[in-house]
Amino acid sequence: MKKRHHILGVDLGGTKILAAVFDERGRLLSREKKATKPELGTATVINRVEECVHEALAAAAIPHTEIAALGIGVPGPIDPKGEIVRVAPNLHWKDVPLARLLRKHLDVPVTVVNDVQAGTMAVAALGAGRKLKDFACMFVGTGLGGGIVINGELYKGSTGMAGEVGHMVVVPDDGPKCGCGNRGCLEAVASRSAIVRRIVNEIEDGRKSVVKQLCDGDLKRIRSRILATAYRDGDELVREVLHAAADYIGIGAANLINVLNPQAVILGGGVIEALGDRLLPRITKSAWAHVIAPTPQRVNIKDSGLGDDAGILGAALAARQLVG
Amino acid sequence: MKKRHHILGVDLGGTKILAAVFDERGRLLSREKKATKPELGTATVINRVEECVHEALAAAAIPHTEIAALGIGVPGPIDPKGEIVRVAPNLHWKDVPLARLLRKHLDVPVTVVNDVQAGTMAVAALGAGRKLKDFACMFVGTGLGGGIVINGELYKGSTGMAGEVGHMVVVPDDGPKCGCGNRGCLEAVASRSAIVRRIVNEIEDGRKSVVKQLCDGDLKRIRSRILATAYRDGDELVREVLHAAADYIGIGAANLINVLNPQAVILGGGVIEALGDRLLPRITKSAWAHVIAPTPQRVNIKDSGLGDDAGILGAALAARQLVG
Repeated sequence: MKKRHHILGVDLGGTKILAAVFDERGRLLSREKKATKPELGTATVINRVEECVHEALAAAAIPHTEIAALGIGVPGPIDPKGEIVRVAPNLHWKDVPLARLLRKHLDVPVTVVNDVQAGTMAVAALGAGRKLKDFACMFVGTGLGGGIVINGELYKGSTGMAGEVGHMVVVPDDGPKCGCGNRGCLEAVASRSAIVRRIVNEIEDGRKSVVKQLCDGDLKRIRSRILATAYRDGDELVREVLHAAADYIGIGAANLINVLNPQAVILGGGVIEALGDRLLPRITKSAWAHVIAPTPQRVNIKDSGLGDDAGILGAALAARQLVG
Repeated sequence: MKKRHHILGVDLGGTKILAAVFDERGRLLSREKKATKPELGTATVINRVEECVHEALAAAAIPHTEIAALGIGVPGPIDPKGEIVRVAPNLHWKDVPLARLLRKHLDVPVTVVNDVQAGTMAVAALGAGRKLKDFACMFVGTGLGGGIVINGELYKGSTGMAGEVGHMVVVPDDGPKCGCGNRGCLEAVASRSAIVRRIVNEIEDGRKSVVKQLCDGDLKRIRSRILATAYRDGDELVREVLHAAADYIGIGAANLINVLNPQAVILGGGVIEALGDRLLPRITKSAWAHVIAPTPQRVNIKDSGLGDDAGILGAALAARQLVG
C-alpha cells in the first residue's frame, strides 16, 4: 500500500478560503482560492471548503488517498482538542464541530486551529521569526489577530485565547463599534473591514475616490488589492484612511513592545501583503513615538516574509504534528 | 562565628524609601520609611537609603554583621547582572552603579532589581498570585509599572524590559505628556503623579476641593492617603479624577487580558493600597467593557494582598536568591 504522506493546509478566512497541498518535505504543490460567502450559512461555507480542497488536490494531481492529514485555520477560538470552532464572528459561527464535519466528508484526520496562532507558528518555523525566540505577530486582514512566541513556543495563555491583539483598546472614549461587541478596539479602526467601512462611508457622503471605478461601482468588492492600486495612484481618501490605520497599528505594535519586550513585531495578513512596503515605514514611525526608551538596538518591526501563505503553512504544520 | 542569616529588602520609590529586615524564615522584623527627595541628587538619595537601612536594623535590633544580603528595588530598567540602574526617570537617574555604591558603604552583598518585577515575584511567591501559573501585575504608585508571570516564572522579555504596562497608549491623539517622553501613556493619566497633577491644576484653576485643607494648603504634599480621605469624604473633584484614572486602569487591564489571556490581573501599589476597595469595582467594570468574549469564568482582577510590602518582599526574595 502506498503511504499517505501529503498534507492539506486550509486557511478559512472571513473573505476567502485558501487550500493547499504540501508534499512530505513541506513543499507547496498547489494552492487554490475561493470566496467564503459566510452570508450563505455554515453548511455552504463547509461545502465551499471541501470544493476548494478538491480543486487543490486536482491541481496538484494528488489522489485523495495520499493525504495523511488536513489542518484548517479558522478566525476564532478553538476548543483545546482542535475539534470545535467556539466563536468566529467573521463567519457568524458559534460552536461548529468543524473537524467532525470535514472528517465525515473528506475521510482524513482533521485538526482545527486558530488561524493567526497557526500563522504565527508558520512565521516561527518558516518566516521572519525563524531565528527568534521571543516575538509577537500581528495579522491585518478581514479582522486583526495575532500570536505571541515566548522562548521559541507559541504562547496560548491560560485558556488558549492569548494574542487577541486586535482587541487592544486604541480609542478609549466611545470609539467605533467592533465585531466583538466592544468599542474602540484596534480591529475596529485598522482591519481591512474597518478601512473599507470608512472609505465606503466617505464615498457615500459624496467624497471622491478612484476606488469607485476600480470596483466597477460595487463598493462591496473592495479588496486589499484595490486599496493598494488606489494608494499607489495617490488617491487622497484611500491614503488618508490607510495612514490613520497605519498609525493605529503602530500604537498596537508599541503596546506589544512595551508589555512583552520582544525581539521583533512581525506583520502579516492581506493588507500587509498588498501594502506592507508602503505602510511599514509609517507603522514603524508611529510605534517609535510610543515605545518606552527605544535603545540603539530597536525592536524590529517587519514583514512576515510569508505573504498570504502564513495561514495555509501554519495549518499544514498543525496537520503534520497530528500525524507525527 | 555566628552565621549571617538576615536579609534586607529595600524599595526605593520616587516618593519614599522603605527598608525592612527579614529573618531566615522570611518573617518581617522591622520596616522603616523615609522620603526619597530625588530633587536633592543621587548622592543624597543613596545616603537616605543607607540611613533608612540603619534605622530598620536598629528597629529590629539586628547588628549589621548578621545581614547575609541586601536586595533593592528601583523604578527603572536594571542591567542583567543586577548592578547598575540604567534609567530611573522618577529619580532623575541614568547609569547609576547602585550595587557597587551600596556595597562600599554597607559591606554586604547587594543586588539591584526592577521594583515592579520584584513586586511581581513577591505576588507570585507570597501574594494573590501564589497558586497561579499565568498572571500580570499592575502597580499604581508614583509611576505605573507591572510584571508578567508565564508558566510560574517572571517573564523579562528579550532585554529585561517586559512589563512596562504603564506605557501602553490609552490616549492615542496628543494625550498628556508622560515621564518617559512619549504622550498618552497609561502612566500619564492613571499614576498617582498624573492624578495629583490633574487635581492640582483644577484647584489652581479655582475648583473647590477638600484636598487643599487636608494638605494644609501645600499641594505638593498630596499623597495616596490624602486622596483616600478626600474620596471617602465624597470630594467631587477627587472622585471625578480617580474615576477617570480607574477607567483607564481598566482599559490597561483589558489590554493585558486580551493579549496575554492570563488567569488574573493583580493590582498593587500605593494608590491601590489606599483606595483599592473603592476603585476595584470601577476598574473591573471598565475592563469587562473592553475584554473580548468574556466567559463565565472571567479573568480575576484583584488586589495583590501585599499592600505596600510587595516591593520590600520582592527585593528580599532577590537578595535571598543571591546568597542561595
